[in-house]
Amino acid sequence: MGNTRATGTKVADAAVSDAKTPRTERGRRTLRKLLDAAAEEFGEKGFHEASVSSITRRAGVALGSFYTYFDSKDGLFRALVADMSEKVRTSARSALSDDMGALEIERAALTAFLRFAAEHKEIYRIIDEAEFVDPESYRMHYQTIAERIADRLHSGAAKGELREGLGELEAWAVMGMNVFVGLRYIVWGAAEMTPEQVAAGVNRLLAEGVLRR
Amino acid sequence: MGNTRATGTKVADAAVSDAKTPRTERGRRTLRKLLDAAAEEFGEKGFHEASVSSITRRAGVALGSFYTYFDSKDGLFRALVADMSEKVRTSARSALSDDMGALEIERAALTAFLRFAAEHKEIYRIIDEAEFVDPESYRMHYQTIAERIADRLHSGAAKGELREGLGELEAWAVMGMNVFVGLRYIVWGAAEMTPEQVAAGVNRLLAEGVLRR
Repeated sequence: MGNTRATGTKVADAAVSDAKTPRTERGRRTLRKLLDAAAEEFGEKGFHEASVSSITRRAGVALGSFYTYFDSKDGLFRALVADMSEKVRTSARSALSDDMGALEIERAALTAFLRFAAEHKEIYRIIDEAEFVDPESYRMHYQTIAERIADRLHSGAAKGELREGLGELEAWAVMGMNVFVGLRYIVWGAAEMTPEQVAAGVNRLLAEGVLRR
Repeated sequence: MGNTRATGTKVADAAVSDAKTPRTERGRRTLRKLLDAAAEEFGEKGFHEASVSSITRRAGVALGSFYTYFDSKDGLFRALVADMSEKVRTSARSALSDDMGALEIERAALTAFLRFAAEHKEIYRIIDEAEFVDPESYRMHYQTIAERIADRLHSGAAKGELREGLGELEAWAVMGMNVFVGLRYIVWGAAEMTPEQVAAGVNRLLAEGVLRR
């Protein structure tokens, strides 16, 4: 799927592996429209109230076309979770550059995630609902992110910036911080703090912990 | 409800304020049985598949008795979330003592939470499902815990052990770490790490952050 672009967002490989891969540019655009409409529909109504006919209506796509790409509402939901995971990944990655220090990388990745969540508040509801609708996708979403964070922590240690011994436990802790501050300040928040301010506070916690020095 | 005890666990005030308060010891025992059976049933089946008749069967309580205490399955679920919040609170509090330092308090509170979660793995599913079934309970659960953590961080700063300026943001970050390591190592884990080991790792992160020194 290398450089396939439709409405500006690459369709996640995993989403496509779940959908039937479109062979034409027009097909890829239709798939993208269905995924975007699904994000709105599942985000607003939740999985059980959402309907395929309402999603195709939002997408401006014929109902018959839906079944060209997906077998069922379940299949679409699974593809959407994979697509959301991929969007989180690319939004974080696009904020990083090679000359950043290890801590700066964590701050930039969190800022990018929070900005993404501010634009796509439905992501929390959709990922959280996956725990019930499609537990395997839910697990995969978090495992994949934790592995990415663990890789970054290892790189930071290899460069001598971070302490030795950081690994999966610390990656899950960092992910948990990021998810919960996003819930509090972005999804529930009344814009008391910007993504940059939230990320700066979390970054200081990572840098120095809570002890007085 | 001060020292009301039934099967060894105090019935949460909030749960009782949602249920109709039983006036007799026998009534309190019945309410406790219903809440414990509800935790099993909602934990195994989820809210939608769970049924009042199956819960009363598990509890060994007549169906008619259910309606002495609750108006509906929704009311029972709401009471159960409040009861779970209260149990998390009391399990953490019982692990703390006045002579502990601020960091030690965080470690002990997390260890107690993880032990509780190991014994009641259904808590994750129930709290997470509250986001969909009863959003107000979901929000309240986390807000209350975050306030408690913020209070502890303030106390630690007042005693000169923790740095100044720790507050709500750091409390949400700490809560996020705790919830996610519990998900990874207790709910999904294959006992690779004990609650004590997980809490020690998180505590080191709080103590010193990730930087090499």
